Amino acid sequence: MSSSRLLVTLALVIVIMSISYEPFPWMGVNASDVPTGCYAYCNQTLESRHQCYKWCEELAHKDGYKLYGYPSSPNTRRVLAVLHEKGLSFDPITVNLTTSDQQKPSFLPINPFGQVPVFLDGHLKLIESRAISLYIENVHRSRGTKLLNHKNYKKMGTETMWMYIESFEFDPPASKLVWEQTIKPMKGLKADHKVVNETERKLEKVLDVYEERLKNSRFLASNRFTMADVFHLPNIQYLMDTPTKRLFKNRPSVHRWVAEITARPAWKKACDANAWYGKKN
Amino acid sequence: MSSSRLLVTLALVIVIMSISYEPFPWMGVNASDVPTGCYAYCNQTLESRHQCYKWCEELAHKDGYKLYGYPSSPNTRRVLAVLHEKGLSFDPITVNLTTSDQQKPSFLPINPFGQVPVFLDGHLKLIESRAISLYIENVHRSRGTKLLNHKNYKKMGTETMWMYIESFEFDPPASKLVWEQTIKPMKGLKADHKVVNETERKLEKVLDVYEERLKNSRFLASNRFTMADVFHLPNIQYLMDTPTKRLFKNRPSVHRWVAEITARPAWKKACDANAWYGKKN
Repeated sequence: MSSSRLLVTLALVIVIMSISYEPFPWMGVNASDVPTGCYAYCNQTLESRHQCYKWCEELAHKDGYKLYGYPSSPNTRRVLAVLHEKGLSFDPITVNLTTSDQQKPSFLPINPFGQVPVFLDGHLKLIESRAISLYIENVHRSRGTKLLNHKNYKKMGTETMWMYIESFEFDPPASKLVWEQTIKPMKGLKADHKVVNETERKLEKVLDVYEERLKNSRFLASNRFTMADVFHLPNIQYLMDTPTKRLFKNRPSVHRWVAEITARPAWKKACDANAWYGKKN
Repeated sequence: MSSSRLLVTLALVIVIMSISYEPFPWMGVNASDVPTGCYAYCNQTLESRHQCYKWCEELAHKDGYKLYGYPSSPNTRRVLAVLHEKGLSFDPITVNLTTSDQQKPSFLPINPFGQVPVFLDGHLKLIESRAISLYIENVHRSRGTKLLNHKNYKKMGTETMWMYIESFEFDPPASKLVWEQTIKPMKGLKADHKVVNETERKLEKVLDVYEERLKNSRFLASNRFTMADVFHLPNIQYLMDTPTKRLFKNRPSVHRWVAEITARPAWKKACDANAWYGKKN
């Protein structure tokens, strides 16, 4: 009698505990609410997280991603690099920058700032290439190249710091030099050599800090390739075809780092216009 | 016999399941490894997460945060706003910007870019005010004002997008206008009115987009106050004391938003130099 009462109690405890283990409560949920809630659920459960994530990804991809962009646009390439590192497919929608389509009234409702890329995930629309990149990494953290350390806040703090060093120290001089030496000539305008010289001095100061860092670290944020490295790729790639290339070559550790990150297959694919247009067929 | 065998099996199942519930395996762990692993553990367990986070925070605060900065520096104030929103204490270390201490050789080992703020959490050193802000929010996600939605990736995507809109659309014209109209006069230099006019035209285009957004949203990223709003505060506060203020006042929804975010107690404290120096006594 006492033994059977204990049996019932134990069975009850197991039932109560099992409730917490309920697998995939998101099954049957509206596809537009996934992967958000689905992934949050995976993080809470003791279920096999890998399996849980995979299931969310499948659900998330019911409609597919859409990317408005242009294959030679540095900011489009930033997002392409992340998509290829993650092994994700998407529908490319070409916005012709050579005819300034991104600033035409028909495009402004899509992005009122008149820029590409624009990323669609169901009803979610995102602009700003770095924000799009971080969204993709967040949703697909378990897939392909892991571009951020989501489990260690200190490591993620260092990675975030190098992402913002790119935004506020590297990008201003680098994108100005790309504008002067690559984009202006494309538009039939002449580079302003005084501006180029002044801006190169600014970039050199940044690269001196990078050189010190890269003496002791394989990549910027750590010995792993991270989002901070991805963010630098588009401007670096263009500067490799300008006289500014010498500033990178003169610094051995920076030079090694540039060679390694620009050689990544995902980056090569991001720079391949045929890969962009090929997807349309 | 059969009943007692079942009993043993059930007991075994409970023991196995209980292993997953082991509370606080980080107890006794080296303080420098916390909160990293500690928080990751909280996310994995079905323990009361709130209690788990609180425990991690206590452990993390053994040594206290240190902040190199200057109370009137916009970038220092950005981090101060986050610290005050979270109700966190810290040791302020004054770097006098009026005597350019941040660019003196003695400071460059602390930040080779010659800037404040610099944030120390034990052995972790972070620069770039936005990266520091995100680190604090990540570690203290359960504490004080919740500045990001960590559980819903789509909402976090939208929040991240508005953070990057601040960095790449709002900050460039806004910080240039602060430089021309506030910092240059402090240094005995005259504002360049041509630059001010041109830059105001750029800022107006950005504020037109903000006005449309804020007609339908209480804050930029959502109806909640988020990190995206915090990031805008330092430049807005300075521009309120310049003729550029009219561009914000002319747009009713932007004006309402500015009034609401600048009135937050945490922001008022961030702008109070006495609060900074008072902490030293």
